[in-house]
Amino acid sequence: MSLRQISAALRRRNSLILLLCLVAFYLIWFQLAGVRLLEGSGHPHSDQWEERVAKELYAMRLQASEMRRQLTRLGSAPAHWRHSDLPTIFVVTPTHAIPTQKADLVRLSNTLLHVPNLHWLVVEDADHKSELVSRLLRRSGLVYTHLSVATPPELKLQPKDPRWKKPRGVLQRNAALSWLRENLEIVDANGVVYFADDDNTYSLELFTEMRDIQSVGVWPVGLVGGVMVERPLVDNGRVTGWLTPWRPDRAFATDMAGFAVNVRLVLNHPTASFSIESQRGFLETDLLTQMGVTLDDLEVKADLCTKVLVWHTQTAKADLKIEKIMEQKGKPATNVGIEV
Amino acid sequence: MSLRQISAALRRRNSLILLLCLVAFYLIWFQLAGVRLLEGSGHPHSDQWEERVAKELYAMRLQASEMRRQLTRLGSAPAHWRHSDLPTIFVVTPTHAIPTQKADLVRLSNTLLHVPNLHWLVVEDADHKSELVSRLLRRSGLVYTHLSVATPPELKLQPKDPRWKKPRGVLQRNAALSWLRENLEIVDANGVVYFADDDNTYSLELFTEMRDIQSVGVWPVGLVGGVMVERPLVDNGRVTGWLTPWRPDRAFATDMAGFAVNVRLVLNHPTASFSIESQRGFLETDLLTQMGVTLDDLEVKADLCTKVLVWHTQTAKADLKIEKIMEQKGKPATNVGIEV
Repeated sequence: MSLRQISAALRRRNSLILLLCLVAFYLIWFQLAGVRLLEGSGHPHSDQWEERVAKELYAMRLQASEMRRQLTRLGSAPAHWRHSDLPTIFVVTPTHAIPTQKADLVRLSNTLLHVPNLHWLVVEDADHKSELVSRLLRRSGLVYTHLSVATPPELKLQPKDPRWKKPRGVLQRNAALSWLRENLEIVDANGVVYFADDDNTYSLELFTEMRDIQSVGVWPVGLVGGVMVERPLVDNGRVTGWLTPWRPDRAFATDMAGFAVNVRLVLNHPTASFSIESQRGFLETDLLTQMGVTLDDLEVKADLCTKVLVWHTQTAKADLKIEKIMEQKGKPATNVGIEV
Repeated sequence: MSLRQISAALRRRNSLILLLCLVAFYLIWFQLAGVRLLEGSGHPHSDQWEERVAKELYAMRLQASEMRRQLTRLGSAPAHWRHSDLPTIFVVTPTHAIPTQKADLVRLSNTLLHVPNLHWLVVEDADHKSELVSRLLRRSGLVYTHLSVATPPELKLQPKDPRWKKPRGVLQRNAALSWLRENLEIVDANGVVYFADDDNTYSLELFTEMRDIQSVGVWPVGLVGGVMVERPLVDNGRVTGWLTPWRPDRAFATDMAGFAVNVRLVLNHPTASFSIESQRGFLETDLLTQMGVTLDDLEVKADLCTKVLVWHTQTAKADLKIEKIMEQKGKPATNVGIEV
């Protein structure tokens, strides 16, 4: 590099920094003006929220511009950084009002935010959509559909029941299937449906793996069924059975997290749904059977099912012992006026 | 002027024009959003605004993750994409080899990937760095430092001990503090240190809130200490005490997840560290006291501590009952040849 080139590079960098400063100055000015204008509007926290989001956008832009510069330096064309016409991934998540609800949804949304062309179907187990979930979805930045349907009391788990005693999320997942049938056209439906509970752990690669599924895709699931991993048995690229200690004779002995289906299967089998009548552990098998799927239709994902890309983690029930003692003593709840 | 100089000038001009267009676009967008927000006083407008801003952030995030992928493909190191204008957030995470370890680290890394200028210090409780964690970090796309230090057996929790019996992660967090002191220069250190356990839930806004901390920043933590939320007591913008049912008389009655410190505090107090000798629940207080912090130094974050941006969730211990029965019967483990 000659001296002259170095000085040119320096000047270029200087002008960049100057411009970034201008943007920063403008942001700060507008924030200050905005805060003043909003004072007394009866919306006390929205201005702070705006400030936070604006700051975050600013930081993201700085990062993006740095990465853009780096990519250009490496000779990469901008066309490579954009998303093309990718099939949509419809992620169906049942949720219900427990103390860890918001935390679990926030954490899942942080993961989903990385996935292009994703549509999140969140179905509350409730008569009405809650303000908490509505606000969370509105602010998530994700493309979403918010539904609610209450599980009748007689079908609900009692507090002391083990988790497996009643099939959970059945009506909620079915509500999402109905929504898809009512809102997509068979002719141009292009996408994949995945049933993703809110406390599982999903690697980002999982979504890349499932996007091109034409019928049903399957893969291993970690930390499920009392073992480290359950997975399809693969021979010569085809599924021949299931490596699971419990009822490997089920037609599709996979956990809910271990498969996704092309949305055409949902539309072409308008009555296929999850059933409250399903025997314990047979929800998945019964659905796929109704869709006319056979072992031969299964598409083997995750490097011939040799990689764990999803884990059936569970969020421990929130310990609220002290909160309850306080309640018994007539003290106010710690979360009065603050959403947790 | 030589041909080369002219073409350099043109390229400079092009990048300038591009940047000016970006600035102009941003100005217009922000004006429109701002005007909409200010029309009337109503909720509906601000909801729309929220959605628009959230979508903008979403688009930025998608673009950023696409660029990240492309950069990784081109062999560029994450350290090169950082923007020097933003303070670095050093996130310290202790980890140990349990069945849910990989899942928890994957899920946390999905969140951290959204945060610009973040440096993840992952410290294994082990004599040597494991292949599992090394590989995970290498593939994460994050800027990271991988350390390991084993907790001596006499200081370790026994399987049946309650979680609070021994302070956990003490040596590991201290190893991260030592690394910072050895690798950063006091004169130009610009950043914030946050102790983030791997199974908590972090909103993305939390990181925006903590980035500009000059001394110590504090905020509420959800689902901790047996209650829905613990938080600093704020009066007139200053911390005056702590809303926690247990020992609110502690100097800094906050959970590890409820504060972050400017890295200068770490460098200027070279012997301040977490102590195995700390009484139960006093780890945080003892550290901040060693750093000479007083209540007056605390910076109140999260809308005057009225928002929960972090939850002390816990990942339930993996249920491996069937795996153990299989082991007793001499059957092979389900995870032979597959990393979970």
